[in-house]
Formats: sequence, structure tokens, C-alpha cells
Amino acid sequence: MSDDAAHISRPIRPVKAATNSAEWRRYKDHLRAWKNARLEKQLDNIQAEELSEQQPSISSITTSQTIKGRSYTLSIALPASILRNAQSNELRTYLAGQIGRAACVFNIDEIIIFNDDDQDETSQEIDHNPFSASEQLIRLLEYLECPQYLRKQFFPRQKLLEYAGLLNPLDAPHHVRTNEYWFYREGVTLPLRPAEGKGSWVDVGLYETKIQIDKRLQQGLRVTVQRTDITQEEYFQTKETLNENPNINKKKRITGEIVSPSTPRLESGMYWGYQVRKAESIRTIIENCPFDDNNDNNSHYHHEPKYDLVIGTSERGIAYNEITEFPRFRHGLIVFGGLQGLEKAFEHEQDHAAADKLFNYYINTCPQQGSRTIRTEEAILITLSCLREKLLAAAIN
Amino acid sequence: MSDDAAHISRPIRPVKAATNSAEWRRYKDHLRAWKNARLEKQLDNIQAEELSEQQPSISSITTSQTIKGRSYTLSIALPASILRNAQSNELRTYLAGQIGRAACVFNIDEIIIFNDDDQDETSQEIDHNPFSASEQLIRLLEYLECPQYLRKQFFPRQKLLEYAGLLNPLDAPHHVRTNEYWFYREGVTLPLRPAEGKGSWVDVGLYETKIQIDKRLQQGLRVTVQRTDITQEEYFQTKETLNENPNINKKKRITGEIVSPSTPRLESGMYWGYQVRKAESIRTIIENCPFDDNNDNNSHYHHEPKYDLVIGTSERGIAYNEITEFPRFRHGLIVFGGLQGLEKAFEHEQDHAAADKLFNYYINTCPQQGSRTIRTEEAILITLSCLREKLLAAAIN
Ligand SMILES: C[S@@+](CC[C@H](N)C(=O)[O-])C[C@H]1O[C@@H](n2cnc3c(N)ncnc32)[C@H](O)[C@@H]1O
Ligand SMILES: C[S@@+](CC[C@H](N)C(=O)[O-])C[C@H]1O[C@@H](n2cnc3c(N)ncnc32)[C@H](O)[C@@H]1O
Repeated sequence: MSDDAAHISRPIRPVKAATNSAEWRRYKDHLRAWKNARLEKQLDNIQAEELSEQQPSISSITTSQTIKGRSYTLSIALPASILRNAQSNELRTYLAGQIGRAACVFNIDEIIIFNDDDQDETSQEIDHNPFSASEQLIRLLEYLECPQYLRKQFFPRQKLLEYAGLLNPLDAPHHVRTNEYWFYREGVTLPLRPAEGKGSWVDVGLYETKIQIDKRLQQGLRVTVQRTDITQEEYFQTKETLNENPNINKKKRITGEIVSPSTPRLESGMYWGYQVRKAESIRTIIENCPFDDNNDNNSHYHHEPKYDLVIGTSERGIAYNEITEFPRFRHGLIVFGGLQGLEKAFEHEQDHAAADKLFNYYINTCPQQGSRTIRTEEAILITLSCLREKLLAAAIN
Repeated sequence: MSDDAAHISRPIRPVKAATNSAEWRRYKDHLRAWKNARLEKQLDNIQAEELSEQQPSISSITTSQTIKGRSYTLSIALPASILRNAQSNELRTYLAGQIGRAACVFNIDEIIIFNDDDQDETSQEIDHNPFSASEQLIRLLEYLECPQYLRKQFFPRQKLLEYAGLLNPLDAPHHVRTNEYWFYREGVTLPLRPAEGKGSWVDVGLYETKIQIDKRLQQGLRVTVQRTDITQEEYFQTKETLNENPNINKKKRITGEIVSPSTPRLESGMYWGYQVRKAESIRTIIENCPFDDNNDNNSHYHHEPKYDLVIGTSERGIAYNEITEFPRFRHGLIVFGGLQGLEKAFEHEQDHAAADKLFNYYINTCPQQGSRTIRTEEAILITLSCLREKLLAAAIN
């Protein structure tokens, strides 16, 4: 069968190659997808010229989810030591960028940086940098996650960010552009004194427009603003038909209120960046889970905040394809090791036996790897990609 | 069921949580895997101390394949333009390293660098570098693929390799260490004059030992040597029981013969690095397939060298999980685009219609991506990871 089968899905003259109607339909689907792609590209080009914007619109990301909230979360944990093994400050910065981007691409809600050796406290200095590896990594990840228009506020010039220009941008949904139609936006509370009985002013990165929210807050806080002059439904509908438009945010008076940073995820299913947390040991990774479902009104799943699916990764784990399905979970956590692997990180733990029990699974996500060793930053992309489908299938929404 | 199910596979007291014998067995498997991993680690540590070697042995990679050749191949193609978009010579070098490593981790046999715009020939200079982007990328990938002990020979000092120290090593199976037991090795023919009727001498990277092969060849050629003093079966059996040993290659007279660089793959199923090729356009990627099954005696599959499964990648493709299986193939090729995507690369083609027909599939390998754009170097790891299982299932061996 080999010769025939090998050509079955070539889009060239599909009618001749297809041997049954299912295959024929598959063909047509492919042809159509391919043609649509070219068509869309042409449309894109026209719009790009009009708006002189290079990047594609984010609409494809948000509208495919028909306004469905997401209550499950995915976290990743990795050791600070990987930063120490990079060769220069430039490469350390670049590496942090790789990790932040990997997290963003796969909609990771939390990144935990843990200590996998005793070095973080003792040998504080890397390249005359007074910060420990974990502090550096955390700062860089937070910088990357912060929308560009708020960075001046929250990240004053500092040595650590000397090479921040090398960071590849996240281009995440919460990095809303000035000319982009929006429903949620990150902002900073302004020192402007509000009128009696009115809430604070917030800069959400629109040139002329500031938003007056419903609450009075001290200045300089990072906040998430949700529009109140339009509904979520209106937003998504308009978004469908609209591309980026330089005038969209000037059209009428925009009003908003402060919401939790998790509201865009919980209520609109939008990916809204990651939070970063430091853990002193593997154990505290698990114990200090920040996701509290008791605050989530839609949830029938009340318990102490905790991860209910914890996966360790190692070339010595079970091959990922041997796992047919994961048990259902609400808060997933995937833990990566450093240069010497996760087992090494465990040796550092006071209580080995307890550490062993932390994982529900211990998985090899790249069987038959062609290199003796896979780097942590590579393992993150590889692991999230091959586990993605099974994780989504098991996530409780 | 959520609460129960979420905990089903925690290794803590599995007998209480398991609700049926299949789950119980899964538990036990996990527990065992985890314990074995720790045990192996301890053994590793002891051996590591003895041999003062940090890295794990490669035996786990080779012995899992019970001496089965591999006749299928996987190639990836990507545009030279991605190098042009990196910010410095350091980062260009690092990026080339990311690509070489991704290829190696997933056992990719060939990397093709194509032109996706007109710039490669016209604006030759990057940072006063007289090489075009494609030349630079190819040189760096070739350097990385070459075993360290042969680099002096084949890559004389040059500006292009100024930052080669930043390249993360491939650590591939064909980068055999001096103290590693071996069956195949890469070498270079030496200027030593062989005795009448004898073959040339080859340096295969063993300090004192040179190998005299069966043929006379001009000096300075890169060759693949296969041992003739042991059989393949002996090699794999001994390898199982042996770890790296500083004396293993001194024990007796080693004899060898020259084989094709594809022999380790075809006869032993070993990953033996990638070859690199330049293509002037998308079309010549496909037309100049180097894999010739007619040379492969074990094959019943005779035809002109060609790729029989060609996959394009794009965020506008069909979601990878909608593809239940690929048609059977012998020589797979996955094509990636640059900053502006594959469709852009096609616009450059003279014959659009023909270009459209090149792909059997056009796949989105990261549905619901949380970043507006995935970088090519990220897309390679993501794509190879999530398509891996389906590709292996369809590959004809
Ligand atoms: C450099 S590797 C660690 C290698 C170390 N020598 C060991 O024996 O574990 C760094 C991390 O990448 C991840 N990793 C590497 N290879 C992997 C694989 N095949 N499957 C899953 N995770 C892997 C693990 O999280 C590992 O701790
Ligand atoms: C920077 S992206 C190209 C983005 C470009 N704006 C576009 O519209 O295609 C570079 C390459 O990464 C790969 N890539 C990016 N996202 C992908 C996805 N979701 N699925 C498959 N491949 C993707 C494709 O090969 C793409 O050409």
C-alpha cells in the first residue's frame, strides 16, 4: 500500500487519489484551508497597508473562544540555576525571554522559580550583579510580562535590565495596542486627584484618554480595568468584524471599573499573562498555590488552594505517549529540573520521602531524544506541546 | 468525580485511592518508575564519581532500539531570513545553535535553508560580515554538527565563527567521546602514507589510536568509520553492560572500514547528525531531495529520490489534532516560514499555483497560541514535539 497511501492527501488532483468519500472530504478540507490561508493573507496585506501595521490581528485568538471563561490554570516551575549556567548577561536576558515566551505561547498562568541547590543564597553575585539568580530571573520575567506602556512606571532603569532590549516581546493578548479595540486593559493609577465622590484616574496606555474607575486607590498601583460602557458580548461581536483601527478608542467616552487580574481569564477565557513567584524549595512550590477557587463564584469545587495535578519531567520518566489520559484537574503544575535534573533538585530537600510524593506523574516528554541532554528551556516548549491535548482534555472548566 | 479522580494517580498510598485494578497497576508503574529513577540517579552518581564525567551515558538512547535500522528520514526547511532578524552576531550564533539543537533532539536528518525574499543576494552584508544570511546559517549549523575533535580540521578560524563558543553543544550520538565504547565514528583521513597494499589512516578522535581503513583516500576527507574487529551485535551487547570507561578504546587493536554516513542510521538505527543544504526557492527544496532509496538494499521501495510527505506550518493551517493520521511516508519534510510566514515566502515564487501544490498538509501546530506570533525557532520544537507520535506511526521502515 505504501506508494499509494503516501500520496493520498496531496492536494494535487484530489479526486484521483482519494479512494473513499472520507478521504475526499479530508482533501477538500485541506485545499480549502490552504486557499483560505492565501486569501486571508491577501486581505491582511491590504489591511496592513491601510493601517501600516505589520503584525496580524489578535482577533483569531480571542474570537475562537465563544466567550467562555476558563477556571482551570496551568503553572510551570523551574530552577533559578539555569540562569547561572548561561554565559553572559546578554544570554541570561535572552534565556529569560525564551522562558517567558514559552509560557505565553502555551497560556501558562504562573511561573515558579525554585532553588535546586544551595548556591542561590551563597554565591549571590553573577557578573558583579548584586542580585541572586532567582531574583534576576524573576525580575526579567516580570518585566517581559508587563505591557510596554507601563514599564517606565514599574521598572525604573536598572543594571539588571541593561539588555532588556534583547528580550523578544511576548505579544500577549494583555499587551493591548493603542489602536486596538479592547474590553480589558492593564493600567496604573494616576496621582490626579479625583472629584468628590468619584474614583481614581487610571492610565491604560491610550494617549489622550484616561479612565476614571469606580474606586479610589492610592497612586502607582498596577490594576486591571474592564470597560463598563460596552458589554462583553458587544466587545466580542464588534471585535469579530473590526480590525485594528487607529481611531477606535477615541470614538466615545470610555468608562471602566477595576477587576481582578484573573477576571479576563475567568469570565472571558482570555489569556492574561503569567504571575511569577519564588519558592525556596520544591515543597513550597506546591504548598503556596495562589489559585483560590473559593473566590470563583462559578465554581462548585471548594477547597484550599492547591495543585491537583503535579507532573515532574525527566528523561527517566514514563514516556508521555504511554499515558492515555490525565485525571481531571483544576490547577495543573509541571515541574522542570536544571542542568542536573529534578532528582538532583530533590537531594537538596530535607525530607526526601516527602518530596517523592509530590508528583502524580513523572514523564519523559521526548523519548528517543537525539541529544544526550535536553535543555530546560527546550524541555518547556517540547513538554507543553506534546502534553497540551491531554491536559486540555482533563482540565475542569 | 472531580475530587477523587484528581488524586487517583498520586503515588501516596496508592491502594486507598485506586478504584480498580487497572488504576492500581498504573499507580504501581508510576511508583516503580519514580523509584527506579532515583536508584538510577544514585548509581549514576557513583559512576560519575568514578569516571569524573558529568553527563549521563548515551546507552539509554541506543539500546532501547534493538538493533533495528531506520530507512525513513525527516527533514526540516526554514528561511535564511530569520538570521537577519536577530539583533547581533552573538544572537545570530545563538539562534543557529537553537535550530541545530532542535533538529538533533528530534533526530532530524536534513536541514534545508531557503530564500524567502530577495534580500539574501542583494544585501549580503550583516554587521560587516561578507557572508549572506543563508551562508552564515549553513556554516554555523555545519560547525555545530561536526564532532568537536574534527573542527580544527574542517573549520579554520574565521570571523563567522567568532562567537561559536556561545553555541550550546549538540551532544549527539555521533559526537562520540574519547572514553566511550563505539561502533561507528566520524574521522578525517590523514596525510600518513600507508604501506603498499594497505588503506589510509584515519584520525577518529582517539588520542593514540589511528584506524587503518580498507581503502586509499586522499587526505583531509571527512569519513564515517565502522569497526570491523567487533560485530554490531557485540557492540550493542557490550554497550548495555558497560558504562563509559577511560580504557575501553585502548584494550586491543581496533580495525575499521569506511561506510556511508547513512549506514549508522540504515543499519543500526542510530541518529547520526543532520546534513545541511541550501535551496534557492521553496520549489528547489522539494526537487533536490538527497535521499535515494535505490542505494538502500533493504528497501522494496524504488523511485526517484523524493519527499513523500510535505508539511507546511502556519497559524492559519488546520489544527494538528484534527489530523487523525498521516499517510505512510519514507521521506518526510516539514517547512517553516520566517517573520512573515510561509505565505510570504510563496509570493516570492515565480509560479504561485505550483507552489500551492507542494504541501500535502498545512498545519497549525499550536492552536490558541497565547502570543500573537510564534518565532520560527520556537515553532520547530513545538511542531516536532506535537507531530512526533503521528509521524513515527506513519513512517515506513
Ligand atoms: C538538562 S535537563 C536535565 C538532565 C539531567 N542530566 C538529568 O539526568 O535529568 C533539564 C531538564 O529538562 C527536562 N528534560 C530534559 N529531557 C527531558 C525529557 N526527555 N523528558 C522530559 N523532560 C526532560 C527535565 O525537566 C530536566 O530536569
Ligand atoms: C513568526 S511566524 C510567522 C508569522 C506570520 N505573521 C504569519 O502570519 O504566518 C514564523 C513561522 O513559525 C511557524 N509558526 C508560527 N506559528 C505557528 C502555528 N501556530 N502553527 C504552526 N506553525 C507556526 C510557521 O512556520 C511560521 O511561518
